[in-house]
Amino acid sequence: MISFDHKKILELPRRYRAQLINSLSGYKSANLIGTVDAKDQENLGLFSSVVHIGAHPPLLGFILRPTTVPRHTFENIKETGYYTINHICRSIIRQAHHSSAKYEKTISEFTMTGLGSVYKTDFPAPYVAESPIQIGLQFVEAIPIPANQTQLIVGSIEEIHLSEEILREDGAADLSKADIAALIGLDTYVTPNTPLKLDYQKPLVT
Amino acid sequence: MISFDHKKILELPRRYRAQLINSLSGYKSANLIGTVDAKDQENLGLFSSVVHIGAHPPLLGFILRPTTVPRHTFENIKETGYYTINHICRSIIRQAHHSSAKYEKTISEFTMTGLGSVYKTDFPAPYVAESPIQIGLQFVEAIPIPANQTQLIVGSIEEIHLSEEILREDGAADLSKADIAALIGLDTYVTPNTPLKLDYQKPLVT
Repeated sequence: MISFDHKKILELPRRYRAQLINSLSGYKSANLIGTVDAKDQENLGLFSSVVHIGAHPPLLGFILRPTTVPRHTFENIKETGYYTINHICRSIIRQAHHSSAKYEKTISEFTMTGLGSVYKTDFPAPYVAESPIQIGLQFVEAIPIPANQTQLIVGSIEEIHLSEEILREDGAADLSKADIAALIGLDTYVTPNTPLKLDYQKPLVT
Repeated sequence: MISFDHKKILELPRRYRAQLINSLSGYKSANLIGTVDAKDQENLGLFSSVVHIGAHPPLLGFILRPTTVPRHTFENIKETGYYTINHICRSIIRQAHHSSAKYEKTISEFTMTGLGSVYKTDFPAPYVAESPIQIGLQFVEAIPIPANQTQLIVGSIEEIHLSEEILREDGAADLSKADIAALIGLDTYVTPNTPLKLDYQKPLVT
């Protein structure tokens, strides 16, 4: 095995360290967050830090980097109170990845990636039309993380739209059936298949 | 597509809702957290919420459920200040999954799963011997999430041990080369392969 101690980690070249540390959390969810501001300017951002917070009430979180530069997604969330989380599937990986390019706020990443913006029911934020799992959220709270000035953005799941064929009988969405992608580090996508489902575990008799 | 609005989500049977909501965040990292208390009682816990917080300083977080029942991992982290995050690979999925069973604090999940406990250098928490990526962390802070009484536990990466063959030239750990697993929802494991690496994205000329 190769080992890095704390001193060696801090002395690594900046890009190398970013690649290494970003890959250490394990497979990451690959999501597009859709928002719109009060003037109907849409925004689409690539996020790989969406995390399950709780099922009851249904809550999702994501990590927002320091707001020392403009964060269009978060500005729109604060302005309207709503956003969508959309899963990236194999057929839209390249388009989705391009939404990570730094565009001005007046340019919509929907337009620049060619991904479709769609509104459902009366939910006030745009979904990604091509996404097999679309989640509508209401902003709940932004929690500061003092260690590095990032924030945990917590939202309440208000509605869910998902492809019929991926909903398992027990309620789980089988992500592998819709070619949904996961991320390794900053730039590497995988679309897993052949899932292995295991039973709820009880202690063995000791 | 199938749709669930907020009312329908809240009315779902409890287990069905847990399966559905737990699968919505996308692929989750599959990790074992190793700790030991001041009396040398070891503990191993299964976590699927490890999230990248930042690369400089190198920080990882995970979500801790409400401490209304004993959380042995967190008790040990507070007692010693240290813990390890170990990735689950294909060959240890069944053993790793069994660590989710609710054992008394006096019983070590290392013993009950048959996974090896190993100490490296002078780091004061046990690693999982069979894991291809082993990360040693120092506790930084526990951040309350008011929305559901969970906490975001933030730790600083103090040392990293990983299989030589998975370290890419650019610094990223290619998780797919070590058969590292990801989780869907509560119980379904996948071991992705054939990754697709994409370039850093710059805005197109408009």
